[in-house]
Amino acid sequence: MTLLDFESDRLAEFAAQVRAEYDDLKAKNLKLDLTRGKPSSEQLDFAEHLLALPGEDDHTDADGADVRNYGNLKGIRDIRELWADVLGVDPELLIAGDASSLNIMFDLVSWSYAFGNNDSERPWREEEKVRWICPVPGYDRHFTISEQFGFEMVTVPMLEDGPDVDAIKELVKDPQVKGMWAVPVFGNPTGITFSEEVCRELAAMETAAPDFRIVWDNAYAVHTLTDEFPPVHDVVGMAAEAGHPNRFWAMSSTSKITLAGGGVSFFHSSRENLDWYLSLAGVRGIGPNKVNQLAHARYFGDAEGVRAVMRKHAGSLAPKFTRVLEILERRLGEYEVARWTSPQGGYFISLDVIDGTASRVVELAKEAGIALTGAGSSFPLKDDPNNRNIRLAPSLPPVEELEVAMDGVATCVLLAAVEKLGA
Amino acid sequence: MTLLDFESDRLAEFAAQVRAEYDDLKAKNLKLDLTRGKPSSEQLDFAEHLLALPGEDDHTDADGADVRNYGNLKGIRDIRELWADVLGVDPELLIAGDASSLNIMFDLVSWSYAFGNNDSERPWREEEKVRWICPVPGYDRHFTISEQFGFEMVTVPMLEDGPDVDAIKELVKDPQVKGMWAVPVFGNPTGITFSEEVCRELAAMETAAPDFRIVWDNAYAVHTLTDEFPPVHDVVGMAAEAGHPNRFWAMSSTSKITLAGGGVSFFHSSRENLDWYLSLAGVRGIGPNKVNQLAHARYFGDAEGVRAVMRKHAGSLAPKFTRVLEILERRLGEYEVARWTSPQGGYFISLDVIDGTASRVVELAKEAGIALTGAGSSFPLKDDPNNRNIRLAPSLPPVEELEVAMDGVATCVLLAAVEKLGA
Repeated sequence: MTLLDFESDRLAEFAAQVRAEYDDLKAKNLKLDLTRGKPSSEQLDFAEHLLALPGEDDHTDADGADVRNYGNLKGIRDIRELWADVLGVDPELLIAGDASSLNIMFDLVSWSYAFGNNDSERPWREEEKVRWICPVPGYDRHFTISEQFGFEMVTVPMLEDGPDVDAIKELVKDPQVKGMWAVPVFGNPTGITFSEEVCRELAAMETAAPDFRIVWDNAYAVHTLTDEFPPVHDVVGMAAEAGHPNRFWAMSSTSKITLAGGGVSFFHSSRENLDWYLSLAGVRGIGPNKVNQLAHARYFGDAEGVRAVMRKHAGSLAPKFTRVLEILERRLGEYEVARWTSPQGGYFISLDVIDGTASRVVELAKEAGIALTGAGSSFPLKDDPNNRNIRLAPSLPPVEELEVAMDGVATCVLLAAVEKLGA
Repeated sequence: MTLLDFESDRLAEFAAQVRAEYDDLKAKNLKLDLTRGKPSSEQLDFAEHLLALPGEDDHTDADGADVRNYGNLKGIRDIRELWADVLGVDPELLIAGDASSLNIMFDLVSWSYAFGNNDSERPWREEEKVRWICPVPGYDRHFTISEQFGFEMVTVPMLEDGPDVDAIKELVKDPQVKGMWAVPVFGNPTGITFSEEVCRELAAMETAAPDFRIVWDNAYAVHTLTDEFPPVHDVVGMAAEAGHPNRFWAMSSTSKITLAGGGVSFFHSSRENLDWYLSLAGVRGIGPNKVNQLAHARYFGDAEGVRAVMRKHAGSLAPKFTRVLEILERRLGEYEVARWTSPQGGYFISLDVIDGTASRVVELAKEAGIALTGAGSSFPLKDDPNNRNIRLAPSLPPVEELEVAMDGVATCVLLAAVEKLGA
């Protein structure tokens, strides 16, 4: 029986019970954090050996160059070939950078804004308006970048197999639409993976703007929670075949594989796109930290080494996701006051509560010492039009804390629901 | 007797002799490189232990935070305090970043261009024109940044104690003049160090533009070639005292102390300037590579550790500088066809040859297998109006190669001179 079907007496009784549970929760004086997709200490320990790498007397890359010295904007061959093998792409179209692919995304947008990109008729700053497609729910840091540059963010819904391609095809008929954010595998926060068909349609569609770009943030390309690794669709190749070689700026990184904030980022794109990027990266600086790239190449050994590490991560993360889903089902399932995703990978569970109650849930949780990501944060301008979505990040806390926190969150969801129902 | 005073017979004889020397030089089929200020392998070896740091089980910073995880935009306290001690500045006004301070400089200019800085009335891109002061000869990569953003570069001469402050004071009366490049200690390429008086005048002068900034690239702050370390003038403090707290964006890095391209960069400025920078750096990314920062803190130990490393560098570099100066004096001194700087630190010797012959010298050297930095590269748009300046970078080659190269360069200088004199 769902909460909406409760007779008023029963609802009042239930509300009293939930309020009592919430009082108990507050009395625990918790201090728990489910806000961000940070790896746990246990996960970071997997890469502990990396802290001693490359090690003394190991400073020469596969091309015989000294990684300690200046130079080599595109990154060392050792790590580019290894990572190209992980992705199944051409290493000549893959650049290795510093630790953050977000940095590269920002720069690509920033430089298109200031100078125009290699297909622009004029710098984006000279456009009357730049519009940007934002599948929702999506990654808050993406939206913050497009907000920073004053782009008008246009949302499209995420469906089971990726963003609504029909809606996107309609939007890109407008030459002011210059780009789109995408997290194609185990998306943030939904866990949804784009189907091959969606990838092909995004690669093949006609766009009015010649300099339209899809920022393809494959942050969770190998971040499985099961024994299976998802296929990596080579969208750069698909786009070339479809006659739109420069459509994708494709990112990935080892941030949640080795060291969050101390890994290696990768940028895969067409030769033209890379040359344009490098022409400006070469003004901005001399080259990436190649010592860290060599350390990573040594740490992984080869592409199979990457997958071996990811199996360890899955072993650590999967039980946490399982527990969260169990608690949600046990505490909320019968009342139909929420629905949630059951991702096969990535870092997040997307929780939808009764419309209009997400911000109240977050507030109640905060009062009980449980920090949740702000309601609406998975939407541009943090504006969830239905005030319904909450992003859960189960990775950081130990599983015992996670259980306490999720049980508390469930109580808050129920309390917000009964409040909404006037009980 | 100078070459200019030679009678025509003697000049012809001398020219024949120089041409024979040049033919001998070419016959050696050299392949030597004096182009860039790269550290030598011997210097890079000083930091070899860093390649194994921080080492396993060492990943906690002075604030108890795990450096392996995300966060901390301003960098870890361990390295900020250590470096603040080196510079004699307030660690709260010092940010530690990734490897490249050039990256930070570019971003500061780029973000002022796109958004305006914290003192701007409007973004610089909306200014009818932005003018930028470039002391010459100066650092080519600085000039390339201001060129990239379309700034009009206005040169001022370098004097014995720094750039011509009177000329600068005149220029900054123009509100279109938004900034200035500076390498205040052991400048690139002159080796000139700004006097305290010059520092104070730059801090105190009135500027028409409220958002005027001096990019203070203290790249060689501790890069002595002698037993003496130069004083580091706290220009941020001087500017605050003079009522212009936001005047300086002050940079430094460990690029030529530990690992070129794999070190730690530092940005010292006013609280307001740093907050503005961090507000945008926090959109661009999550934080710098703190593992590398901790590795550096461990490697140095303390500020004295930095100076100890720099004494090793001086021990390696000083003999190279000495040999270059000896060869220049021995081969060219008596003919008065060139003058050069005798720096007490840094990475370069600035060589002025007979007006109009610098590009010819570089061309002759290239034909003889000696790569020199392109003539004019120390000037905006690579345009040396007198075609006279050549930047010599003695650091990279072993001393035996350096001797051969410099002897060859001297021959080229003489040949270009006799050509110029029509002999």
